[in-house]
Amino acid sequence: MHQKTENRKKITGTLYDSCDPELVADCVCARERVCTFNSSLVTERERRIVLLKELFGTTGDRIYIEPTFHCNYGYNIHVGDHFYANFDCVILDCAPVVIGHHCLHASGVHIYSRSPANPHSSHFWFINPSGPSLSKG
Amino acid sequence: MHQKTENRKKITGTLYDSCDPELVADCVCARERVCTFNSSLVTERERRIVLLKELFGTTGDRIYIEPTFHCNYGYNIHVGDHFYANFDCVILDCAPVVIGHHCLHASGVHIYSRSPANPHSSHFWFINPSGPSLSKG
Amino acid sequence: MHQKTENRKKITGTLYDSCDPELVADCVCARERVCTFNSSLVTERERRIVLLKELFGTTGDRIYIEPTFHCNYGYNIHVGDHFYANFDCVILDCAPVVIGHHCLHASGVHIYSRSPANPHSSHFWFINPSGPSLSKG
Repeated sequence: MHQKTENRKKITGTLYDSCDPELVADCVCARERVCTFNSSLVTERERRIVLLKELFGTTGDRIYIEPTFHCNYGYNIHVGDHFYANFDCVILDCAPVVIGHHCLHASGVHIYSRSPANPHSSHFWFINPSGPSLSKG
Repeated sequence: MHQKTENRKKITGTLYDSCDPELVADCVCARERVCTFNSSLVTERERRIVLLKELFGTTGDRIYIEPTFHCNYGYNIHVGDHFYANFDCVILDCAPVVIGHHCLHASGVHIYSRSPANPHSSHFWFINPSGPSLSKG
Repeated sequence: MHQKTENRKKITGTLYDSCDPELVADCVCARERVCTFNSSLVTERERRIVLLKELFGTTGDRIYIEPTFHCNYGYNIHVGDHFYANFDCVILDCAPVVIGHHCLHASGVHIYSRSPANPHSSHFWFINPSGPSLSKG
């Protein structure tokens, strides 16, 4: 298993400001990695796996995603062994998204960990995170 | 606010021929701009906003869209202040699409202003436009 | 009409191993073609049509797809005359997908010919194909 830095801890469980400069920098970094992943070639299978392992917080053995893929931070995504996501997967990982072993996602799966911002507030970018855990016996 | 030319007037409200050379040229122009927008880098945030302001008919302050985005003409899209659309937004703007202030779109939002063409007709490309208006109090 | 080689016959109707080297090679070849198609310019309309005719098993007259498009093999897709698919179409053609004449797909249409793999089996990549046929009177 592959473990990331602990900076994700700050965005777990309580209301936070998504415009915080450190989080914005994390977001930009993740989007650059995702862009590199999405523009990689199908013949670069091993490179794609390395890119995913760098992007995600925790990864098991035998993982793969078909581009196009999108996520927010990446380090909040934790997948077990034998993970696969088909085309057009979106994971909004404002909070930790924990996916167990042997999970195969169909095409077009979207996983959202953010709750809607309050439309009556002027603080649109304060996010109340609550992330899902997915597992398959 | 940013106002476009008036050529969109010809495609509002009545059946029209989407193969009209002027409309085809508009469509090609919009797709080129959208392609430039979608292939821009996450570090080019200000350039992305300029591209959206050139593409849309009317735009307010503080607007942003996460690529990938798709639309037909662009100039039929009118958004207010504080507009945001997350990944994979599609707006088929054959008719005007008017979005008020403070609208934040989740990932994967599709907005269609075209009604289905008549499958029993040989004129498949004649479109009966009727566009939506979205606003948030 | 445009007819492809017969190698698709091996994957019709019965359980098969998607990790078979020949099928993997077919899949890589299709993804390279799809990548070329998706990165083509809107001004290259004729080239796009040629790419689709090379990719698909059978094609009629007057076909067009708006990128982004995704499929698995391509040669299992058979479309009639006057076929159109709008943005973000996905066709998972593990089994033949037969689309008749005069079919116009809206934005975001996904067509899946594969049934879910058995989650209790260790043979996740054995696929039980059963493809759809779509036609319009």
